[in-house]
Amino acid sequence: MSISRETSTQRIHIELGERSYPIYIGPDLLNSRSMWDTHLSSRQVLIVTNTTVAPLYMDALTETLAPRRVASVILPDGEQYKTLETFSQIIDSLVENRLNRDAAIIALGGGVIGDMAGFAAACYQRGIDYVQVPTTLLAQVDSSVGGKTAVNHPKAKNMVGAFYQPKLVLADTATLSTLPDREYRAGLAEVVKYGFIYDVRFLDWLERNVEALNARDESALIHAIRRSCEIKAEVVSIDERENGLRAILNLGHTFGHAIETAEGYGAWLHGEAVAAGTVMALDLSARLNWIGPADLDRGVDLIKRMHLPVVPPKIGSQRALSLMGMDKKVVGGHVRLILLRMLGKADVVSDYPMPALEATLQHFFD
Amino acid sequence: MSISRETSTQRIHIELGERSYPIYIGPDLLNSRSMWDTHLSSRQVLIVTNTTVAPLYMDALTETLAPRRVASVILPDGEQYKTLETFSQIIDSLVENRLNRDAAIIALGGGVIGDMAGFAAACYQRGIDYVQVPTTLLAQVDSSVGGKTAVNHPKAKNMVGAFYQPKLVLADTATLSTLPDREYRAGLAEVVKYGFIYDVRFLDWLERNVEALNARDESALIHAIRRSCEIKAEVVSIDERENGLRAILNLGHTFGHAIETAEGYGAWLHGEAVAAGTVMALDLSARLNWIGPADLDRGVDLIKRMHLPVVPPKIGSQRALSLMGMDKKVVGGHVRLILLRMLGKADVVSDYPMPALEATLQHFFD
Repeated sequence: MSISRETSTQRIHIELGERSYPIYIGPDLLNSRSMWDTHLSSRQVLIVTNTTVAPLYMDALTETLAPRRVASVILPDGEQYKTLETFSQIIDSLVENRLNRDAAIIALGGGVIGDMAGFAAACYQRGIDYVQVPTTLLAQVDSSVGGKTAVNHPKAKNMVGAFYQPKLVLADTATLSTLPDREYRAGLAEVVKYGFIYDVRFLDWLERNVEALNARDESALIHAIRRSCEIKAEVVSIDERENGLRAILNLGHTFGHAIETAEGYGAWLHGEAVAAGTVMALDLSARLNWIGPADLDRGVDLIKRMHLPVVPPKIGSQRALSLMGMDKKVVGGHVRLILLRMLGKADVVSDYPMPALEATLQHFFD
Repeated sequence: MSISRETSTQRIHIELGERSYPIYIGPDLLNSRSMWDTHLSSRQVLIVTNTTVAPLYMDALTETLAPRRVASVILPDGEQYKTLETFSQIIDSLVENRLNRDAAIIALGGGVIGDMAGFAAACYQRGIDYVQVPTTLLAQVDSSVGGKTAVNHPKAKNMVGAFYQPKLVLADTATLSTLPDREYRAGLAEVVKYGFIYDVRFLDWLERNVEALNARDESALIHAIRRSCEIKAEVVSIDERENGLRAILNLGHTFGHAIETAEGYGAWLHGEAVAAGTVMALDLSARLNWIGPADLDRGVDLIKRMHLPVVPPKIGSQRALSLMGMDKKVVGGHVRLILLRMLGKADVVSDYPMPALEATLQHFFD
């Protein structure tokens, strides 16, 4: 890892044999005609976006893509629309615009748009090309790598989907300037996660550059996004289908899930709940003496400096246990947790002592 | 190819690396406990079937699968139900029965059931195992190989789907005994197709065994299904994603499509239209002197002996041209046709002389 700041567009190559693709990270990529002309051979495209993002970027993108035949479908904004019905609407739009097997889908928006547009691309005529243009920090550091696409079922998230890789990802840092502050910070929670689980030098860098990141400094952002994508790519390349190591990407998510569920979805942003959940994972790791008290303080301090919550709401430790799927009905059941062996090295653990977990839960939730 | 008749269950290995699977062909496989125990490790299964097939085989299959946890979803019978809505119904059933990533889907029925159940397996939790138990001759010789799954869109067939391979195919020849005569013969049309496009020795064998096949003789059926699957596997292995050679599997389908559309879908079974279409493809191949008049007579005679139509309805040659997508709007447009260079060798051709095609169309359709 270079600890210098990038000053121009960066390129990461995601190596997946025939399904390899590049991620570009930099300003104004969306409107770079040469970028599109180099990487998009399709003469017909469907832009999939939502009512929030469309007014900001769709006209310019449509113009940049000329003289290709460009159609678009503008979906309502929000996770509650990540359904088979909305998926079906994208398919209708592909059919009505008579797009053939050589057409491409462009996903212009956050993670929800990427998930749905990617799944539509995976299924339309059994698979057409798609390009991701993630416009949130979370989507840039998360959905850019891994090939997961899906829609929700009324009873469970991401129940219907496919592993399907994009042909190209354009992480345009200029689009982050329009991101609401809370959403931006929620994205930072996922960035700092990569440092904790995999790369202490990246943690060092984040500590030195947290003010620049808070100010959305372009070169700091480019480096942070690049390193996040690189780490996710390394983890995913070892475990593409999520059988083992890939679970470390869920640091803070089990605690975070309890928070989100207890507070009602949407009250806490996912990234906010993950931030507080990460603090709890650090706390438990410290109780097990895997990391020292100074490590814990460092971690909490960094999250705090990103203006992210380091204290969860008082939802009650017994309720939390139940929400984590560990109520008394699960006899002797230990939920797998992602804990830190040291800063920069996470592990999937299910043989932790229950009293330590209970101490963490009581400390934060009671 | 062996020209002897098989007298016991046959096994074909479909080689696709990690996605390889076996096809078993023989009587009473459905109820063979040892077959299931050898090949199905899942402890939870969902049987996807329809209202026609369920009363015939579902109870016995459910019993054979015990003590696995067996749920089922019984769909209405017919191509008109091969929709995203029905797909969604299968997904609902998977969720409601709390089937997890280790569960398996069993597709019990014809091609429509296989297409939908396979697509649901491809998408549920981004992919779970599935087993095909095709109960029609057409499905046994067609859907068993190739990994195509899909549902229809109101405006176009097979618009939404995936390439997804089963873990196991059980072509139980005993299930063919309950197949209506027309459907059985429609399946034979696809069997004879494999001889025409790829294997003149199989054509010889079919000529010698047509009476046995008409009588649904078990050992003749086992051989015919086996050789059909082998040929399809060879063609598909060369061209898994349908870029070139795989198109030869569509012998007779372009003419057949014109017949089906002109008569209204359902009036002619797909296999019946393909049979008449195959005669037309042979006729055109003979007009081009690629096959001789004796070859043409042999082919037509064989199809006739299978009690399949060798003469299409008089839909008019101009209308047929239009239905084939070759009306005057397509300037100089030649639709790709599958023609025979000789008996047992098909080719994808688009540089045939138009007058020869017109002669064939006029001869049969006017």
